[in-house]
Amino acid sequence: MTPLETVLPESLGEAEEDVRAALQGQGFGVLTEIDVAATFKEKLGVERPPLKILGACNPGFAYRAILIDPSASLALPCNVVLEAVDGATRVAIADPRDLMTDLELSELAAEVALRLEAVVDTLQRGHLGTRDR
Amino acid sequence: MTPLETVLPESLGEAEEDVRAALQGQGFGVLTEIDVAATFKEKLGVERPPLKILGACNPGFAYRAILIDPSASLALPCNVVLEAVDGATRVAIADPRDLMTDLELSELAAEVALRLEAVVDTLQRGHLGTRDR
Repeated sequence: MTPLETVLPESLGEAEEDVRAALQGQGFGVLTEIDVAATFKEKLGVERPPLKILGACNPGFAYRAILIDPSASLALPCNVVLEAVDGATRVAIADPRDLMTDLELSELAAEVALRLEAVVDTLQRGHLGTRDR
Repeated sequence: MTPLETVLPESLGEAEEDVRAALQGQGFGVLTEIDVAATFKEKLGVERPPLKILGACNPGFAYRAILIDPSASLALPCNVVLEAVDGATRVAIADPRDLMTDLELSELAAEVALRLEAVVDTLQRGHLGTRDR
């Protein structure tokens, strides 16, 4: 799967705030949150750089998807992965076109993908703005 | 995507307890939980039959998957969908072989799928036992 992605020049905590705001701007709430690094530390005793998975969902789109195909719930929510990399944070968003591959869902998946591309765009522009000031 | 699935002759709440126990028996914890029906009610004002998504994860498998391919985190956790259907509960588990399609992950995905098939098997046998008593 090829995600929608960008790298933000800030810590994972700062990136998470920006990502949540940009998702909200496109109607996506964050329904779940997994601190993967903390889970590995607790369950396996291994250390790794910060890694979090946010589960994003736009209820209107989700409702339409499940009406079209009840099994769409297998592909919800949409994963937004935040990973600390060399002092910056990589943000990778699962592409709904990779997850909802049934023909009946393809139009809706494309519509959701446009919104998520707008999220990535907002994040990138936000940081262009910061550098310009 | 074709999930691993079964139908249990009990309420969604009872099925959830059985599913959590069967997952635990195969080393999977439940890291996230979305009450989809409650979310639709709250956000959209629409009513629908009970529908929940549990996010199951076996930390050892997840750790190995991310070591092999860091983008595997886009496919975590594994969705377990519980849906009330005609007085029973349909349990559908996303097949990791559909989610982790990269060649390097295929062996691990098959190993995880075996465990999840064992979960479905435990659930089915549990209810065969109930009927036999």
